[in-house]
Amino acid sequence: MSSQAKAALQEIRDAVEIELADFLTAQSNYLTSISSDLAPVSQALSSFLLDSGKRLRPLFAYSGYLSAGAKVEGPVIKAIASLELLQACALIHDDLMDGSDTRRGKPSIHRHFESMHVQDELEGFAPAYGLAAAVLLGDLALVWSNQMLNVAGLSSQQIHDVLPIHDEMRTELMAGQFLDIHEQTQKTVDLDRSTKIARYKSGKYTIERPLHIGAALSGKHTPELLSVLSAYGLPLGEAFQYRDDLLGVFGDPSVTGKPAGDDLREGKRTVLIALTDKASTQSMREESKKYFGAPDLDSRGISILQEMITSSGAKEKMEFMINELTEQALTAVESELIDESAHPLLLELAKIATKRST
Amino acid sequence: MSSQAKAALQEIRDAVEIELADFLTAQSNYLTSISSDLAPVSQALSSFLLDSGKRLRPLFAYSGYLSAGAKVEGPVIKAIASLELLQACALIHDDLMDGSDTRRGKPSIHRHFESMHVQDELEGFAPAYGLAAAVLLGDLALVWSNQMLNVAGLSSQQIHDVLPIHDEMRTELMAGQFLDIHEQTQKTVDLDRSTKIARYKSGKYTIERPLHIGAALSGKHTPELLSVLSAYGLPLGEAFQYRDDLLGVFGDPSVTGKPAGDDLREGKRTVLIALTDKASTQSMREESKKYFGAPDLDSRGISILQEMITSSGAKEKMEFMINELTEQALTAVESELIDESAHPLLLELAKIATKRST
Repeated sequence: MSSQAKAALQEIRDAVEIELADFLTAQSNYLTSISSDLAPVSQALSSFLLDSGKRLRPLFAYSGYLSAGAKVEGPVIKAIASLELLQACALIHDDLMDGSDTRRGKPSIHRHFESMHVQDELEGFAPAYGLAAAVLLGDLALVWSNQMLNVAGLSSQQIHDVLPIHDEMRTELMAGQFLDIHEQTQKTVDLDRSTKIARYKSGKYTIERPLHIGAALSGKHTPELLSVLSAYGLPLGEAFQYRDDLLGVFGDPSVTGKPAGDDLREGKRTVLIALTDKASTQSMREESKKYFGAPDLDSRGISILQEMITSSGAKEKMEFMINELTEQALTAVESELIDESAHPLLLELAKIATKRST
Repeated sequence: MSSQAKAALQEIRDAVEIELADFLTAQSNYLTSISSDLAPVSQALSSFLLDSGKRLRPLFAYSGYLSAGAKVEGPVIKAIASLELLQACALIHDDLMDGSDTRRGKPSIHRHFESMHVQDELEGFAPAYGLAAAVLLGDLALVWSNQMLNVAGLSSQQIHDVLPIHDEMRTELMAGQFLDIHEQTQKTVDLDRSTKIARYKSGKYTIERPLHIGAALSGKHTPELLSVLSAYGLPLGEAFQYRDDLLGVFGDPSVTGKPAGDDLREGKRTVLIALTDKASTQSMREESKKYFGAPDLDSRGISILQEMITSSGAKEKMEFMINELTEQALTAVESELIDESAHPLLLELAKIATKRST
């Protein structure tokens, strides 16, 4: 069952990949028809987008479509593939805001253009060039995600049904991102605030809304179906974010493609950190302040913080919460409103979202 | 005639203002329903967008609509007002990329959030917070411009007609912006390259495409009409950019709301600079390098560069080109394909675009 679902997901991933490659080739030709100086832009976006990524948002959208009992047709794959371009915008701008050097083991976009500036001995200040390129490539990815959806070949009815959800999802994404950077400026950590950020950044943006978009594309998106999809998507999205937070602290750099303890160096106030703080004494809090968020945090400091998080019980509690939330999600799948054809995918996706190491 | 046109333009500006204020109020309520921590986001965007700006893009779109001989109805104003949100994205991200401290005499968005960080004694590094806020507010403005167009109440046919032009305009904008920042990294200045940037950033994005969007909304956008609108819009847009470049060097800070000689301090390679370079001897080029692009450029350095530009004949040549291009645009207006009702507005807008001091 699971291996069949895995194969089905891989088939969709491949179809998404083909649509993305086609679209990017056309856009790349368009850009170079304006000026050959734009070649590095489409090259960088193609290399960022193709041959990598879990394609989670298109996969959830596809499952949302199946959940409504519809049979997937051509334009739908192209429409849901566009979510990967939106995600590219989010990641490119996120790496810039966080000052992250790498993404999936490769240089982040701002570092990539910064290096090109140095290598080609260009005029001006290389980091400023990197910043500007990352801002514009993220903007372009955002515009293109919209364009790809527009040119997918959807019917007027599908466009009419999907745009409101798509617009709301994008506002929720930016709102979640702002709350996240705002949280890093607060003097205290707060479980409620961090939980809300996890809900918006991941529960809604990564899972619930893609499912809704898929359902809307089918035209069979009753309020009841949308609400069952939320009952699956919201807890699963939260669990997804908590797995992400655990990987940001305990993940293996050779697998995640990010430096060890990256979130600790950044001082990211996640639910994991809020739970640790809650279980800490004042002296432990003082001690952790020496390391948490230190830009020069070394492996010794990382070990100390990892040990504090583990011994506070926060790590275990997070694993427990991930299990609980995943169980909630799986219970929702049993609803008779969800077409059987979607079951194997929704179950497999729940595993991928919560039991991953990257 | 001109005063009637002025009054008509002001009426459209007022209507655009009302639509923007309405939309922003609704979005602001939505954001604060997510979290009160998002209040600064909508406040900053409202203060950035309302009560300021020339509203050029909506005005050109309106004129494009009239050019087709259509009578403007409710949803059209809301649809064309959305162009101001796209422009807000462009300006917010532009100021961040250029490191500009001010916009229309007020702090730029990244500086605004940086100051809030300092004032509220928040944790972390204030400029990093300013950067992140500017990235996200620009993204949000881009998403909202799209949403405002989507919810304007257009018919399916109007949506179908306008989206391809809208998508192309946004790609052209980002392409023009990238070519602009790329140009600043080149060892040589180049008249052809700088002219192309002016054409994409202003000819197409500011004038031609808004005219086309207006025409498309009317449903009467024959290829012939679009091509006459291009014959007006492209030269006028180029002239608009050259006026901008002159103001960036010779503008009065009390009127432009930007520091004197801002473009000189930034080392912006405009057509004006390319013309100066072309008319300079090698020793003059060496001399100008001491000042051009120096971050600490003072009023003496600005005067020296201004004098070089003037005495090279480049300033005069630019004024000549602005006149020539404007004449070309005005000739295009005489086409019988353009409905008479649009004439006064197109003539007045040509004045506003090229004879302004801000």
